[in-house]
Amino acid sequence: MNFASDNWAGAAPEILEAVRREAVRYGPAYGVSDLDRRVESLFDTLFERKVAAFAVATGTAANAISLAALSRPGGVVLCHSGSHILEDECGAVEFQTGGGRLMPVGGPAGKLDIAELERALDRFSPEFVHAGQPMAVSITQATESGTVYSVDEVARICASARARGLPVHMDGSRFANAVARLGCAPADLTWRAGVDVLSFGGTKNGCLFAEAVIVFDPGRAHDVPYLRKRAGQLFSKTRLVAAQLEAYLEGDRWLAFARHANGMADRLRAGIAAAPRSRLGWPSEANELFAVLKKADAARLREAGATFYDWHPPADGSVPLAGDEGLYRLVTSFATTDAEVDAFLAALG
Amino acid sequence: MNFASDNWAGAAPEILEAVRREAVRYGPAYGVSDLDRRVESLFDTLFERKVAAFAVATGTAANAISLAALSRPGGVVLCHSGSHILEDECGAVEFQTGGGRLMPVGGPAGKLDIAELERALDRFSPEFVHAGQPMAVSITQATESGTVYSVDEVARICASARARGLPVHMDGSRFANAVARLGCAPADLTWRAGVDVLSFGGTKNGCLFAEAVIVFDPGRAHDVPYLRKRAGQLFSKTRLVAAQLEAYLEGDRWLAFARHANGMADRLRAGIAAAPRSRLGWPSEANELFAVLKKADAARLREAGATFYDWHPPADGSVPLAGDEGLYRLVTSFATTDAEVDAFLAALG
Amino acid sequence: MNFASDNWAGAAPEILEAVRREAVRYGPAYGVSDLDRRVESLFDTLFERKVAAFAVATGTAANAISLAALSRPGGVVLCHSGSHILEDECGAVEFQTGGGRLMPVGGPAGKLDIAELERALDRFSPEFVHAGQPMAVSITQATESGTVYSVDEVARICASARARGLPVHMDGSRFANAVARLGCAPADLTWRAGVDVLSFGGTKNGCLFAEAVIVFDPGRAHDVPYLRKRAGQLFSKTRLVAAQLEAYLEGDRWLAFARHANGMADRLRAGIAAAPRSRLGWPSEANELFAVLKKADAARLREAGATFYDWHPPADGSVPLAGDEGLYRLVTSFATTDAEVDAFLAALG
Amino acid sequence: MNFASDNWAGAAPEILEAVRREAVRYGPAYGVSDLDRRVESLFDTLFERKVAAFAVATGTAANAISLAALSRPGGVVLCHSGSHILEDECGAVEFQTGGGRLMPVGGPAGKLDIAELERALDRFSPEFVHAGQPMAVSITQATESGTVYSVDEVARICASARARGLPVHMDGSRFANAVARLGCAPADLTWRAGVDVLSFGGTKNGCLFAEAVIVFDPGRAHDVPYLRKRAGQLFSKTRLVAAQLEAYLEGDRWLAFARHANGMADRLRAGIAAAPRSRLGWPSEANELFAVLKKADAARLREAGATFYDWHPPADGSVPLAGDEGLYRLVTSFATTDAEVDAFLAALG
Repeated sequence: MNFASDNWAGAAPEILEAVRREAVRYGPAYGVSDLDRRVESLFDTLFERKVAAFAVATGTAANAISLAALSRPGGVVLCHSGSHILEDECGAVEFQTGGGRLMPVGGPAGKLDIAELERALDRFSPEFVHAGQPMAVSITQATESGTVYSVDEVARICASARARGLPVHMDGSRFANAVARLGCAPADLTWRAGVDVLSFGGTKNGCLFAEAVIVFDPGRAHDVPYLRKRAGQLFSKTRLVAAQLEAYLEGDRWLAFARHANGMADRLRAGIAAAPRSRLGWPSEANELFAVLKKADAARLREAGATFYDWHPPADGSVPLAGDEGLYRLVTSFATTDAEVDAFLAALG
Repeated sequence: MNFASDNWAGAAPEILEAVRREAVRYGPAYGVSDLDRRVESLFDTLFERKVAAFAVATGTAANAISLAALSRPGGVVLCHSGSHILEDECGAVEFQTGGGRLMPVGGPAGKLDIAELERALDRFSPEFVHAGQPMAVSITQATESGTVYSVDEVARICASARARGLPVHMDGSRFANAVARLGCAPADLTWRAGVDVLSFGGTKNGCLFAEAVIVFDPGRAHDVPYLRKRAGQLFSKTRLVAAQLEAYLEGDRWLAFARHANGMADRLRAGIAAAPRSRLGWPSEANELFAVLKKADAARLREAGATFYDWHPPADGSVPLAGDEGLYRLVTSFATTDAEVDAFLAALG
Repeated sequence: MNFASDNWAGAAPEILEAVRREAVRYGPAYGVSDLDRRVESLFDTLFERKVAAFAVATGTAANAISLAALSRPGGVVLCHSGSHILEDECGAVEFQTGGGRLMPVGGPAGKLDIAELERALDRFSPEFVHAGQPMAVSITQATESGTVYSVDEVARICASARARGLPVHMDGSRFANAVARLGCAPADLTWRAGVDVLSFGGTKNGCLFAEAVIVFDPGRAHDVPYLRKRAGQLFSKTRLVAAQLEAYLEGDRWLAFARHANGMADRLRAGIAAAPRSRLGWPSEANELFAVLKKADAARLREAGATFYDWHPPADGSVPLAGDEGLYRLVTSFATTDAEVDAFLAALG
Repeated sequence: MNFASDNWAGAAPEILEAVRREAVRYGPAYGVSDLDRRVESLFDTLFERKVAAFAVATGTAANAISLAALSRPGGVVLCHSGSHILEDECGAVEFQTGGGRLMPVGGPAGKLDIAELERALDRFSPEFVHAGQPMAVSITQATESGTVYSVDEVARICASARARGLPVHMDGSRFANAVARLGCAPADLTWRAGVDVLSFGGTKNGCLFAEAVIVFDPGRAHDVPYLRKRAGQLFSKTRLVAAQLEAYLEGDRWLAFARHANGMADRLRAGIAAAPRSRLGWPSEANELFAVLKKADAARLREAGATFYDWHPPADGSVPLAGDEGLYRLVTSFATTDAEVDAFLAALG
């Protein structure tokens, strides 16, 4: 019953086997092996266009390098007030962009409020250098709140950004869960909707450590190899990252893993919503769910072996709690089993 | 006959198996699992003192974070003119130190010339802010030229640095090969000799991707967790790096791998020195060797399936070449087999 | 009737004459002339202790270098949500600290709310590297809202910071106005209250361009000369900055200028408060005041030759405005004349 | 007899008077006054095209911001081994470019050797990310050795750079002395020859503190206002810099000052070359000259009141010295008088 986080899971057997197969032979270092090239080509296919893809090791690196590629002096990235780049990356974006700033924009359940975004953007003026200049809008898909932007919602945010000359970055640490839920083409959810750069995640969805920076217009990717190398993210044995990504993308394994995780979350959501003393904090659609439980129930579940985190209720007061209630986050993954879900729901009562 | 580089090898079976074992279970993310703690403890044992150890993914990251931990404004790192941080890391140190400078110091066969180092250091003066301030001396062990500093040589460099108030960093990307050659205690080659921070390498010696920043005085390591995180080097599944390092250190496997690589290099060195049309460019002791071959022989060897790199002769003219000769680098690894060496020497003739 | 800003004024005749006197002779460059030394000594006297003082050219530079001197990786500076470093310096602090972050803390009329500050500080934990680490608290004295912290208020903020191991920076762009108002010793308002580094302003109070970074414990100032030089803030003819500062400090001219500016603001405040159709937005004490005027009156004043800025009402709703009213900022300076004030108040009616 | 440096001189009376005139009135802050606009227009006229001009306070800032405007990740600036940005700016370029590197290129008497420059550039390859990427060539005009590139020499260096896709920066801290010597149009020496960005110096030639970053193609200057502001180089009273530049440019005063300084240096050069016990280290053409004197003569001159610096002989051995000889630098300025020159030559004997 481990619902602590999808990064508490290990790696999927198919991924491990791909690494093992590649690890027992020699191959060129630093991203120029045939395998590295094959993975680049798989990304082209996946996104239905030529893209520039750069494997890195962590989501923090993918986000920081993506935004460094869009960086301008005195630059400001508009992002959700609860976004990972703002809350959980120790200033990595600020550092790797050479001093950029992240400006929080609100919005319910992890999604940017477009009107608030536009107001924030429209306060900048080239006449007033003191406030700096906006350099990108960053959205998270699926969001930190387990919600998923629709293709149309992404397109509207991108239109707002582009009307003001700004590129859009998507933190796709859980991109697979969003695509699996929406059932859309990855291209529709990204560049066709107006996204310029994507942090494509693999680690949370069955890889050991495999993320990629995807620049949809390769003509704008000139500097990314240098950004990656100076960030210490160009592995010598980059083949062993590529092996993971190949296995991950082949046969839409990435979507199968994500569908599994989403489905396990759906079962948990349904069970929690139906149980007498619990409810969902808000509707979510990906592999994260936020449950209001009696504190006594939470304690009992933990004693029974369930692992999950306490969570801060949203600052906007949208999840009122009784004194004996708490908010808790549960995350499922490729590794979650029906047995774990069954056991949890049974223990919840 | 793959002698291209030790990072063209894959990963050792024992390392792979350790990763697989850890990857099939759940565990806490971000470096706080029991396994992470065990590895920290293994480093304490290895170095015979309490150290602060931080796993990262690449040698570039280990070096850049190590030197960032020693950084000062207007700071200058003195290092060998052929060192990896200067030649091969795309400005990673300059970037991660916020604009530091690397100042080359000469010396034969990859080793810093102490007199030249001291002259360079003594040119700085706090009265002359324009030139910046020295912030560290960095040495590479084993060196990029396959040579190995003796314990005494390391101690003398450290004494020169410390007499001027400077800390010493050791790029130990091939630290194992140096220790295996010298047969000394790791502590004797590092902190007891005066080294403050070590980039401890695993990747080139049988790991998939596993390096560690070792700060010998944990009291000076306060900022390293933040440096690592903002660099995008704190893996979520850091357990899978720790699993490699545990398997690597257990039973002195790291030294066994290095001894094997060094021994294979010794056999190649002996064969090349003894062969009628080839010689060694200079004596080396670790798993890199530099051979003067007839160009025709080199071409023939490559046709026969040998992989190795052309190399630039030293700028100091210490390796004179005839018109039909070239300088070539051969690197052995944990994966090199007797059969590969035999085949190479046989083909060399 | 120029009340646009104190930096719209030029320079005081005594300051200009000091520059002229120094400019007609030769003298050593880069801060080592006798005059530079005399100014350092004047700062020692002013603050009743040995301090380390570094002249720079702009308030932005003084703030950025001050905070760079306190910088840590993943570092966060807590400051007021309306502070100059946050609102008006184009990411200078983020840039010069190598990627630091400014975290806004609220509080009425430009002053930090201590309880909110402490809550923000207490959310950080060394166990949770993802959120970064606090590196300083920065307060502005006088504030951007024209208010002045009492000695006791400064001391309480410093105590909160120091209890958590944090240094305190004071943006003293209008330090003179605060000291002139409080009538206290500069030492009491700074280091004796717990301030570690001060941006000491001269430009807004009669100098051409003269600010200084004051580090109260010279033992912690080692790196500041390098921070200043690499920031391009070490003038070659630093004597000409020093000449301004000498004339500024001599005979407490700086306080005389500030007292004059404050007094002119007092007259305006009294007149505006007493006039039938205007009022003060909030009480202020330094040389900035914020007036609620009928829009028609504001327009008429401008037609009559008055210069002043529209201002955003505080986001907390503490200054309710009728539809025909606006909020306006008026700033006085060493150059403001009684005639200007009289004319304004007469035109206000 | 003050020949220590042109930045030991103060400011010219005409410049001081212009500052005084502007300082006694109000005017808009932060570079938007009519005077600021007039100076921009003067630069357009001077360079016979629309340019983007940004006043800053120091040569270090002008160089660092110029090169930051050309910055790329992993970027390398090729410059002369004796250049000011390399020797005397405390890592300002490295810092402001976010970690760029300066790569020294040799050449006699302060001028870049084109063949060596091209060899250095041609060693970079986009295939080899490890070495970083070249981002600019920077030349100094007049050079640190008092020599002056001809228009043709500048054009050839620019052609080499542009053939490789690189922009060219000119450190024109003593640009006036070069133009005055060559008698050419400023446009011919800069953008018509292929220069992209110029650090236009005023401080060493009679201003208090006034430099400008000139971007010849205004379409490429978008980010410079932000680079300047975040560097703390946007003065509030920027009018007082503009006043200097207006007086400096009006009536070609800048050239008159430089002609005077060059002429004084010519007289010193002729006298030193003609005197029995002294000679010139190498021919120079601007306001710096390098003399080989008997040490006893140098001591005697200093006793007689002459001020000048000892200088390091070039590392290439091109200035052999006898045991009783030393190399010395003498610098003239707008302020140097015939009487000073006469007295020096008389004392030299």
